[in-house]
Amino acid sequence: MRMRKKHWAKDMIAQRSDCVIAVPEEMKGHWSELADGREIRVEIGSGKGDYWISMAHLYPDCLWIAVEKDESCVGIALKKCLDNTTSNMKIINGDATDIDKWFDENEVDVIHLNFSDPWPKKRQTKRRLTYGTFLQQYNRILKKGGRVIMKTDNVTLFEYSLVSFDENGWHLKEVSVDYRRDPHQEDAITEYEASFMELGQPIYRAMWQVEKEVCHD
Amino acid sequence: MRMRKKHWAKDMIAQRSDCVIAVPEEMKGHWSELADGREIRVEIGSGKGDYWISMAHLYPDCLWIAVEKDESCVGIALKKCLDNTTSNMKIINGDATDIDKWFDENEVDVIHLNFSDPWPKKRQTKRRLTYGTFLQQYNRILKKGGRVIMKTDNVTLFEYSLVSFDENGWHLKEVSVDYRRDPHQEDAITEYEASFMELGQPIYRAMWQVEKEVCHD
Repeated sequence: MRMRKKHWAKDMIAQRSDCVIAVPEEMKGHWSELADGREIRVEIGSGKGDYWISMAHLYPDCLWIAVEKDESCVGIALKKCLDNTTSNMKIINGDATDIDKWFDENEVDVIHLNFSDPWPKKRQTKRRLTYGTFLQQYNRILKKGGRVIMKTDNVTLFEYSLVSFDENGWHLKEVSVDYRRDPHQEDAITEYEASFMELGQPIYRAMWQVEKEVCHD
Repeated sequence: MRMRKKHWAKDMIAQRSDCVIAVPEEMKGHWSELADGREIRVEIGSGKGDYWISMAHLYPDCLWIAVEKDESCVGIALKKCLDNTTSNMKIINGDATDIDKWFDENEVDVIHLNFSDPWPKKRQTKRRLTYGTFLQQYNRILKKGGRVIMKTDNVTLFEYSLVSFDENGWHLKEVSVDYRRDPHQEDAITEYEASFMELGQPIYRAMWQVEKEVCHD
């Protein structure tokens, strides 16, 4: 079901300069100044912002940057945190294909992919956020030892991603085919995730680490 | 539940020289003579032999070598195929830790691990058939491009194995977190596997390929 467009979202985004990064290209190479020694975590495809908001509050010692292409979703996320936006919350209304216009090499510690669009059809494979071209972009912007952490309810996307990361030279460090069989209070449960848990469906999760030649300075 | 010892198994094994390889050490380096151009597939931990018997009949163009340490299990497997043992069925009553005494470098095409003992406790990790020392043995005896195919119902063993193969330099070529959601008629369903399917529990499967420097002659 496609969400109805929120006409107020554009104005909301324009008004929220406290956390919206309006011109992320200008931040390229300068995120560490904003992070001020904190770990930089980027959630690509942050949707309505539940994970971003919860995790930013759980981990004030990280800078949490949400990336979401849908203007209405960004609006909803901003509405949700009207009264509780912390200084470690930043959000970009833009498309994941542009991330290396916004982040320089070796700028990011962790990339989070939560319940990404599975793009199930064969001809849509290139749009999956774990397709090779995306993994190469992640490789560039991540620091040495940087990680991608993925959660999904989608079997096909999960299986595809395990093979895709392997093919692109990443190392699987952690994997779970039923992440919520243990409580994992260190990780926020979004409404979307909870709906699958209620149905007794497993949540799949994996963490990969990049092995890169590039030195981080 | 531990199976009661079958006292007739020893005699049965001694009598079945048509398919029992009594002194596998003597075969080391000579399996290709027995295979006579056929692909060599080794099932480690063949239990009561259901998979071995079914697959040998499904794929007469492969030499199927079952390995099982439990004498009673080998006896049961031999009883099951009293009337339908084909020339491509061989069985070894021995322990997986000895496989490189029986197989030379680059002798085997595929290793199958089906519903292996999960050895769930931390101090038992070394006994798991996907522990590093085993993977190194598989690496040695497999031909270049050789594969390990694993099926299991055990979540913890499956997750452990995905990371263990990765750590040991193998490549994940196929993975399924619910293998029987598609029929897969090319692969035999054992009684044990069927019992999990009836309960609606997923069967996990993965295939890894080894990347080795050693040349196959």
